[in-house]
Amino acid sequence: MPVPAWVPIREELRDDEPYGAPQLDVPVQLNTNENPYGPSEETARDIADSVHGVALTLNRYPDREATELRTSLAAYLGHGLTPERVWAANGSNEVMQQVLQAFGGPGRTAVSFAPTYSMYPEYARNTHTRWVAGRRREDFGLDVDAALALIAEEQPDVVILTSPNNPTGTALDPAHTRAVLEAAPGVVVVDEAYAEFRRDGTPSALELLDEFPRLLVTRTMSKAFALAGGRLGYVAADAAIIDALRIVRLPYHLSAVSQAAATAALRHQDELLAQVDALRTTRDETADWLREQGFEVAESDANFVLFGRFEDRHAIWQGLLDRGVLIREVGPLGWLRVSIGTPQDMQAFRTALQEVTR
Amino acid sequence: MPVPAWVPIREELRDDEPYGAPQLDVPVQLNTNENPYGPSEETARDIADSVHGVALTLNRYPDREATELRTSLAAYLGHGLTPERVWAANGSNEVMQQVLQAFGGPGRTAVSFAPTYSMYPEYARNTHTRWVAGRRREDFGLDVDAALALIAEEQPDVVILTSPNNPTGTALDPAHTRAVLEAAPGVVVVDEAYAEFRRDGTPSALELLDEFPRLLVTRTMSKAFALAGGRLGYVAADAAIIDALRIVRLPYHLSAVSQAAATAALRHQDELLAQVDALRTTRDETADWLREQGFEVAESDANFVLFGRFEDRHAIWQGLLDRGVLIREVGPLGWLRVSIGTPQDMQAFRTALQEVTR
Repeated sequence: MPVPAWVPIREELRDDEPYGAPQLDVPVQLNTNENPYGPSEETARDIADSVHGVALTLNRYPDREATELRTSLAAYLGHGLTPERVWAANGSNEVMQQVLQAFGGPGRTAVSFAPTYSMYPEYARNTHTRWVAGRRREDFGLDVDAALALIAEEQPDVVILTSPNNPTGTALDPAHTRAVLEAAPGVVVVDEAYAEFRRDGTPSALELLDEFPRLLVTRTMSKAFALAGGRLGYVAADAAIIDALRIVRLPYHLSAVSQAAATAALRHQDELLAQVDALRTTRDETADWLREQGFEVAESDANFVLFGRFEDRHAIWQGLLDRGVLIREVGPLGWLRVSIGTPQDMQAFRTALQEVTR
Repeated sequence: MPVPAWVPIREELRDDEPYGAPQLDVPVQLNTNENPYGPSEETARDIADSVHGVALTLNRYPDREATELRTSLAAYLGHGLTPERVWAANGSNEVMQQVLQAFGGPGRTAVSFAPTYSMYPEYARNTHTRWVAGRRREDFGLDVDAALALIAEEQPDVVILTSPNNPTGTALDPAHTRAVLEAAPGVVVVDEAYAEFRRDGTPSALELLDEFPRLLVTRTMSKAFALAGGRLGYVAADAAIIDALRIVRLPYHLSAVSQAAATAALRHQDELLAQVDALRTTRDETADWLREQGFEVAESDANFVLFGRFEDRHAIWQGLLDRGVLIREVGPLGWLRVSIGTPQDMQAFRTALQEVTR
């Protein structure tokens, strides 16, 4: 429903809808790539105790630089990173908005390669960055020759690569990452929101940071760390790139509560990350099962699987929802995306899908 | 220090500094208008328990609409407001950025009246909104004839009024608010971050919401609610205006932790607001004392006082800092701003100021 005529919203926004998957209360939620395993009582208690530790001084503004949290994030990432090379914000979407505020904006161009994460065009819209989407190959891998040609033609200020890609699950070929980094005239963001789920032998772009100072690698605590509700995204880059983000960040953007909760969660990283292997196994089993059923399945290095193809994917989505299983109608036409839940969740998904497609 | 030449930041940002007052560790902090009274142990415990209540499900995304929190905020504001007429974000600065993303932006103009809050031009810069600053009267009140003339000339998409104004403390004359609302062609934001500290008989712009659908009244929990560390700003407006903000907000911008902490704090509003009267009394005593010492003092309805004038205000600021008292060098040349702390804080301020100006 468009915004009423009397509301003086910018005209290009008037017909837009607020972004987001439907938040429906159903038994099996496999639509937003959440981690199905919540923190343990011990971790939950430490998060609450850490918040209690800052609660008596909440009358004071938080540490604007979030130094303790950034120190913990740098230690987690390794690769010789230090706090001044790491930045954090309220979700990786705030990180990305800051990146486009600093390096994109009016008169500047950002490039990514579709099908990819559907928020990117919204970040570009919000920051008035011109948005150009190249195309991936039929198997959703990066078409590196086409990508390099597009970069040569557009000379983009920002290139966004996504590895593993959402919603396809496709990891980047490291040789392609390097080729893009060598060709791009501006900054290159490798969005590694799902990096912890990648298969063995797939390197992270973190390894390239020392070699390419205009590289930014974004991460999130939402997925592998099971902290979607905590909204903590972060980025690793050269210290001078981080300093550029500090210019456009809103002061005190990260509350003392958020800093304390995320820092506590990082102390329990062994526990929180322990489920990643189980999720990878369930992902591979789910992909195998879908193939056995005769579906096409995209190769996935993430905690979700894109499968198809359906003449009427909306009918399939609705049929699953009617059976209490919520997945996501997203990505190229004819495909659907299912997040990896517990084995019980996936059994419910299998049963429902068999009923719907019988 | 400018960003190095190899960093492809937008050129207009290259020489900018990250915004924010110095965060120095000194005994008496009177520089950022914080409330000196932290929450009680009972309130801190409830905040921590509320975070514990959501911690076990932090693997799930938060309620994107923050319905429970907005319901609590609407109940606090009164005036017949409902949750769909209230919006919340990570600090009123995120609210303001969303307002300018929806109603300002390239090709659009925002107007405010200086001296006023020094973040406004940064919001405009971040959103590429043209920024026009009118001037206040010598006594820092709004020069309503000049304001109406400027509005007629600029036809601004956004007008920002501030009541009480920061850094001067000046409340708006309600007749002036009404005159601006009748003349402005776009939205009018009345920033009431310090509203709870206003003197008896000064009305809130909340009273005008039903009459003027293009009015937005912003508030914060940072000051009267003593929750600066919780970063919770909010705005009351027509539901269609709120819907416009929902289009530009980043999805899941408010974490489950932030929502839980702020909702808990609102349950303790009687306790948290109980110090407001004490702070108002201390403010008036501070202003009286400064006048007795021969200083000029701006009339203040906020939890701070602007005083002057000094040939070399930086020397005064530094002299106070050398004595462990941190105030803010901000506002018109020759003036300094002191936040209202505890009576002990203010005694330290008085002693230090007498020493420095002797």
